[in-house]
Amino acid sequence: MDAMEFFQLSTGKWRSQRTTHHLAFKRAERGESEIEIQALSADDPKIIEICQLHEFDPRSAIGGAFVSWHGSMGWDKEDENHTGSTVFALLPDTSDGRQGTLLRERGYAEIVPVAGRYHMDDEDGLVLTTDYDTMSSIERFWFVSPSVRMRTSTLKRFGGFSTATFCTEFRIADAQGVSFNSDVADFSNLTPDQIEKVIEPTKSFSFFG
Amino acid sequence: MDAMEFFQLSTGKWRSQRTTHHLAFKRAERGESEIEIQALSADDPKIIEICQLHEFDPRSAIGGAFVSWHGSMGWDKEDENHTGSTVFALLPDTSDGRQGTLLRERGYAEIVPVAGRYHMDDEDGLVLTTDYDTMSSIERFWFVSPSVRMRTSTLKRFGGFSTATFCTEFRIADAQGVSFNSDVADFSNLTPDQIEKVIEPTKSFSFFG
Repeated sequence: MDAMEFFQLSTGKWRSQRTTHHLAFKRAERGESEIEIQALSADDPKIIEICQLHEFDPRSAIGGAFVSWHGSMGWDKEDENHTGSTVFALLPDTSDGRQGTLLRERGYAEIVPVAGRYHMDDEDGLVLTTDYDTMSSIERFWFVSPSVRMRTSTLKRFGGFSTATFCTEFRIADAQGVSFNSDVADFSNLTPDQIEKVIEPTKSFSFFG
Repeated sequence: MDAMEFFQLSTGKWRSQRTTHHLAFKRAERGESEIEIQALSADDPKIIEICQLHEFDPRSAIGGAFVSWHGSMGWDKEDENHTGSTVFALLPDTSDGRQGTLLRERGYAEIVPVAGRYHMDDEDGLVLTTDYDTMSSIERFWFVSPSVRMRTSTLKRFGGFSTATFCTEFRIADAQGVSFNSDVADFSNLTPDQIEKVIEPTKSFSFFG
């Protein structure tokens, strides 16, 4: 799978459940958002525009995506909202399209245009590395099924890790807007006893404690 | 890096910050634990014993670890505690030791002995797959620095995903028990204004919204 195929599999509408671990504060912050992703072809005006913005030759791009979202985080101030959109473009530097430069209109941590590096790992996870002036981020996205996508990201600044974030994302509609039942376990026919049993496993720890 | 080297790097005492997304309930549960990991050599009596328990030839094992922990989760009942320990053994089936069988005294979700499959991926993450009678789990562990380890795990049952868990783990002591400052950003000399700025990045979303 190349990165463009990864984005094509990502099209449609998703519900995202998010947790940020604030490492220095030893606190966790929760959030939720709805995300919509459209694939863009290499000749889309938005792709050409973002390449020009970054002074890259648009003919190097194999395509990209337009992403829009709205959501909320636990530590929001009252007037805050998380509605936004961005465009990104893929410029592979290998013939298999599995690694290269990713251009974004806005980055994870800053609202200025950023160029990062991407590669597909051997489990077909998409790994993005972005260096900013005062910080750096590593993000990894992967599918656990066609309708469940996950991601982790870590942000480094002031000489150490500041946050680690985990998102679980379910497809709620396909690219044509048709709604979709994702691969979440269906507990609707379980008895209270069975539900009690369902949440038990999380009450024992994994093999590393 | 082979899996045994991964475990050697994991020795010592760790503080773990944990979040479980209960997917069907759309809820998140927090937890914390302290974990201690000791590497075991191939000829350790504990390794020989667990191989015999699973009816594997102990000579196939390259070593393993003894792990103990105590912690708490948000949904605990009053009398619940998460103190425990386990032994696991690595039995590679390739000469580079990067994949094979992992024997555990107890699994992620059940307290019976389990045998799973492990492999090291191309980012030197350790991936474990375990099939139980009524469920299956995939776990991935990786180091973001020598003193910061992360893991994600997903649990599948009743025909779908039931939980997704994310842990951020900091080394607090090395294998000799000497305490350790992990690579967490130090905010102690920042002004309130700077701290405000530090938590800002999490208030904008990543490139997928």
